[in-house]
Order: sequence, then C-alpha cells, then structure tokens
Amino acid sequence: MTETETDLEPDPGTEIPEDHPRYASLVTRHRIEAGVDAGITSRQGLIAQGRGEAFDYLLGERTLPSADAAERAAAAQLLLADHAVISVNGNVAALVPEETVALADAVDADLEVNLFNRTAERMVAIADHLREHGATEVKGLAGDGEIPGLEHARGTVDADGIGAADTVVVPLEDGDRAEALAAAGKTEIVIDLNPGSRSPRTAAIPIIDNVIRAVPNVTAHARDLAGASSSELRRVVDEFDADEALTAAEAAIREGSFDGDGDVA
Amino acid sequence: MTETETDLEPDPGTEIPEDHPRYASLVTRHRIEAGVDAGITSRQGLIAQGRGEAFDYLLGERTLPSADAAERAAAAQLLLADHAVISVNGNVAALVPEETVALADAVDADLEVNLFNRTAERMVAIADHLREHGATEVKGLAGDGEIPGLEHARGTVDADGIGAADTVVVPLEDGDRAEALAAAGKTEIVIDLNPGSRSPRTAAIPIIDNVIRAVPNVTAHARDLAGASSSELRRVVDEFDADEALTAAEAAIREGSFDGDGDVA
Repeated sequence: MTETETDLEPDPGTEIPEDHPRYASLVTRHRIEAGVDAGITSRQGLIAQGRGEAFDYLLGERTLPSADAAERAAAAQLLLADHAVISVNGNVAALVPEETVALADAVDADLEVNLFNRTAERMVAIADHLREHGATEVKGLAGDGEIPGLEHARGTVDADGIGAADTVVVPLEDGDRAEALAAAGKTEIVIDLNPGSRSPRTAAIPIIDNVIRAVPNVTAHARDLAGASSSELRRVVDEFDADEALTAAEAAIREGSFDGDGDVA
Repeated sequence: MTETETDLEPDPGTEIPEDHPRYASLVTRHRIEAGVDAGITSRQGLIAQGRGEAFDYLLGERTLPSADAAERAAAAQLLLADHAVISVNGNVAALVPEETVALADAVDADLEVNLFNRTAERMVAIADHLREHGATEVKGLAGDGEIPGLEHARGTVDADGIGAADTVVVPLEDGDRAEALAAAGKTEIVIDLNPGSRSPRTAAIPIIDNVIRAVPNVTAHARDLAGASSSELRRVVDEFDADEALTAAEAAIREGSFDGDGDVA
C-alpha cells in the first residue's frame, strides 16, 4: 500500500475493502458522489470526473516520472512565488480537501474558491467544506476582481487573491480560463489528466496526473525543498521542460495497456 | 452536416449553433443532463458519460470502418435472431430514445429497461420516456426472470424478455453483467467506447462507437439488409472478426490526435 492510498480513507459507511484492485479509483468515485450530496460537485463535475477516469486508466493510474518532475518544479515555483494562490473548484474540494489545505500550508499559498459555474450556494458550500478540512482563510466570496478577456461570471476573482497573485495553481481548469490567466501574466501550474487539452498546454508547469496523487506529491516535494535557496529552487524550475512532460504523457497514454478491466467500461 | 448530426436536434431552449465544431458533443451533453432532470440518468451515468467522451475524443469522434462492419454484423445478427431484445439503461434512454425505438422496429426486437442500479422510479421514468419517443411495448418492469451468476438485483430481467432472448443488444453495459449474459448463452451485441473493457471483449459482436452514432447506423444497415436471405445474413455475421475490430479500435485510440481542444479538459 502506498502512502497516497493510505491517505484515501473512505468516509464511514462505505464498504470498499482496501485490498480491492481498484481501491483508489472506487474511493475517488465515492468522494465525488459525496460531493454531489454536499452541494459541492456539479453535474459537469461528474462528467469531468469520468473523462479523468478514462485518461487515468490509459495512463495506468500512476504518476509518471515526467509528472513527478512537474510536481517538483511546481513545488519550487510555489516556494519562489511572492503571492501564490491555489484555485479550488467543486471537484478539487470533493476529491482532495485536506490535501489541498496541506499544500497551501506547505507553500504559504492562499486558497480561493473559483468556479466555472459560479453560484453563491456552491461557493459557500465549498468554502465551508475547506474550513471543515482545516482551512483557516478561504478567498473567493468577495469576487471584487476580474481576469480580463472572459465574460463577466467566468472572470470573477478576488482582487487580493487570484487578482493579485503572481503564481496560481489551477487544477482541473477550463481552457479559456487557463489562457486568460496566462495572458494576465500569472505563472500557471495546471493539473489535468489530458495532455491534449488547452489548460496544460497553456501552463508554465503542466502536471499530467490525477489530483488525488498530484496534490500530496507537490506538498511532499515542497517539504523536501523547504530549506533550499532561491537559486536552487530556480534551477529546479528551469530544468523542468513542459513540452517534454506533455509529450511523455501523450506517449504513455498511447502505449498504455488496455487490460480488460470492466470498471472503466 | 451528416445524417447523424441532423438527427441530433437539441431540445427547445438550448442555444447550440449547429455549426459549432463540437455540436454533436454538446448536444450529447445536453441530452444527458436533461436525463438527470427527468430522473433517467444516474450520477454513475454522468461519470460513465465522461469516460465515453474521453475515449470518443481519442477515437476522433467518428465511426471507424471496423465499427461500421460491427454495426452491419449486428444488424444481420438481429435479423437472424428468433427473439432479440435491446436492453435500455438510463444513458441509452437519455441519449438515443427515438433511435433505439427505431432500431427495435427495424429488426423486430423487444425493448427492455434493465438497470445496474435498479429503482422502481427510474425503471418507470425510463419506460415512460421510451413510450414518449414512440415505443409501444416496453419490458423490464415485471422483473420475473433472472440471469444466473449475478447477485439478485443485478440479475433481474423479464422472463419473457431478456430471460427468453437468444440475442441481446447491451449498450454501455457493466462487465460482470455482460459476462453473465454470455454465460447464459445469449448472443451479445455490446456498444462501448473502451475496447479494453470486459463488456465488448465478452461480446460476440463488439461495437466500439458512440451510441449516438452506432444505434442509427445499425438501423440503417438493418434496413439495407431487410431483403437478404438467411444465408446472406449469416455470411455478414461470419465475416465479422471481433478481435480484429477490438484491435483496430485500440490502434485508433493510440494513434489518435491530441488536438488541444479544451472541451475535454
């Protein structure tokens, strides 16, 4: 059992044996469904979850070496940032609430709820959910800033959050919004399982990995790099090659095994 | 505009321009969400829809020649059957209700609602939905038969429907259930976008295609073959090679283009 799997304790009431071959995948699915019950995950979030499952299946449900390198570069970039913000949407909140709070703590980043389909109810539900999992401050509800180049509701951010950030982590982000954030001069770290989608292609640091594995691994790298100098951190960032990472992920998907597992049918 | 796309008229109230590059995909998504509103599509159905979207994206959102051959063989097999039944679940009902009724008419098959997560409410909602789209008889609500080898709720069928059928069409079916149907001696036609999942690997005729494209195309082939003799139909079935079709679909997914489209992010 890996550490990531140990982190994935199902909520009480589920009966998924830990030795089930698809334990992590089933726990993930359980969390996302619980997110629907809690008003956190949208219908579009469930469909996006399915797309992620398919790409993760083709990737072999593992963190590629190129993704691990991206996660280390992301940690270094976050430690170098003057003002880092982690954008949290419904699926991120449902899937990795504690893990996201831990990452924010490890790199001294803000947490900001930011939704593609913004409703007051979901904003509040997600902020509450993050607080229940240890967050002390959650931005996003002010909505007094704007990312240029997007229709109003899509571009709304907090002026002192994503609006003022130099580095943003946008897991599972829409392509238009990822492009607008990059155009606004933010250094973007995107987590996405499809290496072909625009969001990771727009990012300075694209992480092609499941958020369930990626977020704790960025945190682990940040803790490992905590004592490093700025020049050491800069070197980790500079040595990372985004195009190479995207190409490696594409290759892994193309070469991945179709193992006949019915759960992804 | 292809004939399949013409069939895909969005419901009133949607505003998807027909020349949108992802028109079919957006209409599909709209139909599946409307299915949730109608009590037809489950949460698991939304996740399954997302998995399908990812595989279809990698396939290039097209019917491969090998899938067209499978669809022709399926039409011939259905015309040869003594008693064919088309199994309808929530996603099939939401995505292709008229198209499924048209196929049943073209090959003189029964329609049977059959759900992985069977609830009386969803059974009735789906049967009603099929009737609203032209079905005259819908089986599945009797539930007086059973497929051996499955826990009770998973194996429930109509004794005079799937229970008595020699040929069954199971679009988007779970692997355990597909295996149990094959073990019960049914000739299975499976529609599934993942060539690696157990359901198509279990099928006599696996169709690796989107149900949106597959169902109308099986109907078109059935109409084309309507005057064929039994021996001609038998030849169409015999010439189809299931392993070749699965291999061709895998190859297409591996070779497919990652075109940077953000909609599947």
